[in-house]
Amino acid sequence: MIDAGRDPARIAASARCRDGARTGPDDLRRWWADALQRTRMTVERVPLARLDRWRLDPDAGTLAHADGGFFRVVGLEVDRPDGPVPRWGQPIIEQPEVGILGLLVREFDGVLHCLVQAKAEPGNRGGAQVAPTVQATRSNYTRVHRGGPVRYLELFQDARRRALVDVRQSEHGAWFYRKRNRNMVVETTDAVDPAPGFCWLTLGQLHRLLARDDLVNMDLRSVLACLPFAAPGAGPEAGAAATSRGSGFRDALARSCDARAPARHTEDEILHWITEIRTRTELRTRRVPLGELRDWRTDGTAITHRDGRYFDIGGVSVVASGREVRRWSQPLLRPRSGGVAAFVVTSFEGVLHVLVRAQVEPGLVDVAELAPTVRCAPADLAHLPASARPPFVDDVLGAGPERIRYAAVQSEDGGRLDHARARHLIVDADPRVRYDGRPDFRWMTLAQLASLLRHSHYVCMQARSLVACLLSLAADPSPARPEGRPR
Amino acid sequence: MIDAGRDPARIAASARCRDGARTGPDDLRRWWADALQRTRMTVERVPLARLDRWRLDPDAGTLAHADGGFFRVVGLEVDRPDGPVPRWGQPIIEQPEVGILGLLVREFDGVLHCLVQAKAEPGNRGGAQVAPTVQATRSNYTRVHRGGPVRYLELFQDARRRALVDVRQSEHGAWFYRKRNRNMVVETTDAVDPAPGFCWLTLGQLHRLLARDDLVNMDLRSVLACLPFAAPGAGPEAGAAATSRGSGFRDALARSCDARAPARHTEDEILHWITEIRTRTELRTRRVPLGELRDWRTDGTAITHRDGRYFDIGGVSVVASGREVRRWSQPLLRPRSGGVAAFVVTSFEGVLHVLVRAQVEPGLVDVAELAPTVRCAPADLAHLPASARPPFVDDVLGAGPERIRYAAVQSEDGGRLDHARARHLIVDADPRVRYDGRPDFRWMTLAQLASLLRHSHYVCMQARSLVACLLSLAADPSPARPEGRPR
Repeated sequence: MIDAGRDPARIAASARCRDGARTGPDDLRRWWADALQRTRMTVERVPLARLDRWRLDPDAGTLAHADGGFFRVVGLEVDRPDGPVPRWGQPIIEQPEVGILGLLVREFDGVLHCLVQAKAEPGNRGGAQVAPTVQATRSNYTRVHRGGPVRYLELFQDARRRALVDVRQSEHGAWFYRKRNRNMVVETTDAVDPAPGFCWLTLGQLHRLLARDDLVNMDLRSVLACLPFAAPGAGPEAGAAATSRGSGFRDALARSCDARAPARHTEDEILHWITEIRTRTELRTRRVPLGELRDWRTDGTAITHRDGRYFDIGGVSVVASGREVRRWSQPLLRPRSGGVAAFVVTSFEGVLHVLVRAQVEPGLVDVAELAPTVRCAPADLAHLPASARPPFVDDVLGAGPERIRYAAVQSEDGGRLDHARARHLIVDADPRVRYDGRPDFRWMTLAQLASLLRHSHYVCMQARSLVACLLSLAADPSPARPEGRPR
Repeated sequence: MIDAGRDPARIAASARCRDGARTGPDDLRRWWADALQRTRMTVERVPLARLDRWRLDPDAGTLAHADGGFFRVVGLEVDRPDGPVPRWGQPIIEQPEVGILGLLVREFDGVLHCLVQAKAEPGNRGGAQVAPTVQATRSNYTRVHRGGPVRYLELFQDARRRALVDVRQSEHGAWFYRKRNRNMVVETTDAVDPAPGFCWLTLGQLHRLLARDDLVNMDLRSVLACLPFAAPGAGPEAGAAATSRGSGFRDALARSCDARAPARHTEDEILHWITEIRTRTELRTRRVPLGELRDWRTDGTAITHRDGRYFDIGGVSVVASGREVRRWSQPLLRPRSGGVAAFVVTSFEGVLHVLVRAQVEPGLVDVAELAPTVRCAPADLAHLPASARPPFVDDVLGAGPERIRYAAVQSEDGGRLDHARARHLIVDADPRVRYDGRPDFRWMTLAQLASLLRHSHYVCMQARSLVACLLSLAADPSPARPEGRPR
């Protein structure tokens, strides 16, 4: 029986371990080279009319698969009387099923390791990315539809197994209509041999991978953010190895993960603020046929915005040519330009705070969720007057290197989105900018975000992704490889 | 600035205070006698066809008001393939607006008092009941529709005011489709003179009123359950006044309110269990015209079940004949028989636990919520085979007086429901009954329920009502009236 109270300390220890007991640096390189071979995929963009078994249904006005499963593209009319844009229509991906994103963890040499897999998706840039142990739709996991069994799925289906994390979280509310996935972290003490394409990595190893572009996939970043984390720098050894600037930041980050640290607002105040925004905001959505969307053109090629903004819905034809060959075709949502997701951070009383925004989106289950300080596609803002630009966009985009704590481009879900990527930034606050006083922004500690992440639909996908990136900065960069590698 | 960390202690102190600084026993009697006069209401049952400005729309198949506001009665088809009844249809009340249930609190002589009002509703048994400071629909509070201003509403609309509670909670998922109210407790330090019909009571005074039938209305019970409570017996004085049986129970209840007390399950295990049930359960609902409900008859008189079970939708014509006369008519949902809501309780390691059930209902926002051990209308079970009776019904209904800690009949919302009442029971576990081992039941402490009650949609209306009743048992019954009554 493992004491749940020890989880944060065990997670911190795994994050300090930059070199795994099971997969050393050479093993990791070999595994990845093999995985790239194993998951090769050829993706060709094709007109929607050429998709196999997908069709634009003129009566329903949807783009759907003949079997009715998977997902659909529907039209959505949005009324938001108090918003900057009071009314608009858009295509949106509808996938009401709740899938499982499952990460299996196990101790080796007393250190938690995560079983990850190399997984290719048609919309990925560069093929495979590092994914959780299981990514399964409900159709997979209730076995309603045909399709092979999902490896390791049974480990997440046994409700009696110890779960460190089990919470449904949303996906992008601008692109998905009420899509949610069940983020799970389940611990095993049994021997589990990694299947081909899988390997055991510590959190410290995953944190190193998070420094690189397009490598850790969106689902894994989401799950990592939901872990009951404590900052790895929290131990007594943090002070010794610290350099002046780095240590101040890492110490503040460590304290930010501590629920007892002083925060700008109490959790009651945060909940009051969220409830107020969710109750006050009038947001009405109504599904309409795609053909009724005035600003969008739907034809046999694609669904596109009339001014070429935001995104297209296009088709891809896929040949997965690894060890076994599979072919299929499907639509993907293809953003017209790259995104930005940024947290502005600062310390109050030595405790790092991130500036979160309560952001309303039409596809969210509950009106608004906590989002990054800035989240946008800058190119889509070009036509707007300066007054309509979201707050702090220019502050974040203009930040000099001395303010940037983290910068990498991370990929969104390549199973539904085509080359959707966002530059992730963690940026020190500029002392000359006034961040306070805006009703939809609040400074929060990581411990406060962690407390809300135990529950559904408080912290949006992009904010979870940034939380995972921010936590990757917490560890002392010196490696702490455990001695010996038994088993 | 009031320290939020002190709230539980202040709430416990108010609960110990069985006699208020502002309203003594005689004042209370006088206030109530006056309130009954002030809120007199004559209610006559009338056929639906005679309702003013309400009509059964044969096209839409709904019962709706001509102005489109208020609420509607719609048909709902429910598919729940794994449930005891895999498919059924029913009428249900649809009211998508989020109303405010607001309780204003203020310290007098250092003791928190609650500003309550006497409020009559057409479906109430016996006219007026004790209600929160504000019960307002969204139409009231956004002033979209006509209608006079709601007294004290502005105190709940200022997001900067300190809120002890601000959380949206559901109503009965068998009768309402996704109805939610915003439960708020807001503190003021300003002088607020009670308007006619209002008075200041301590929690201890409200707890006394909870011992009586049909007196504290449903909305107020809901708000009271959301308070960050600590058991009033938790102070050092509890031991001294305790009798043997009472003290053991009260001590266990006090410890149950302490988040540090040992619990049968960790909060992570509880969340895992809830997520598992919400994800596993297949529940699909679809609105249909009332005329398409096979088991229900809709005519100009009423909407009734063909076997006379469950409930009717009927009309009432109302004359409110207090200080000002108002007339209106409206439909009400009229249960065919009385309900029961019961918690079975027991102590583990000296900590009281309640046996909660994760219960699926078609009108809930999120599939299932934590419900009482038993919640049913016994008369509606009579036609079922013994195997289909809900668990523990006979255990609870057959409990002898030596097991019963609390018993009173409490009213449901008289604004939508006609004489809907449920016998509230808190019953000691029978050592001969095996309660464990059922997948949809868990033993939980009050502190665990309190933690979930800070968030929306975990704890159902009837369970909140029982939590309020259970907390009313915690105080030492000896009065502790503060000295002096200044101001």
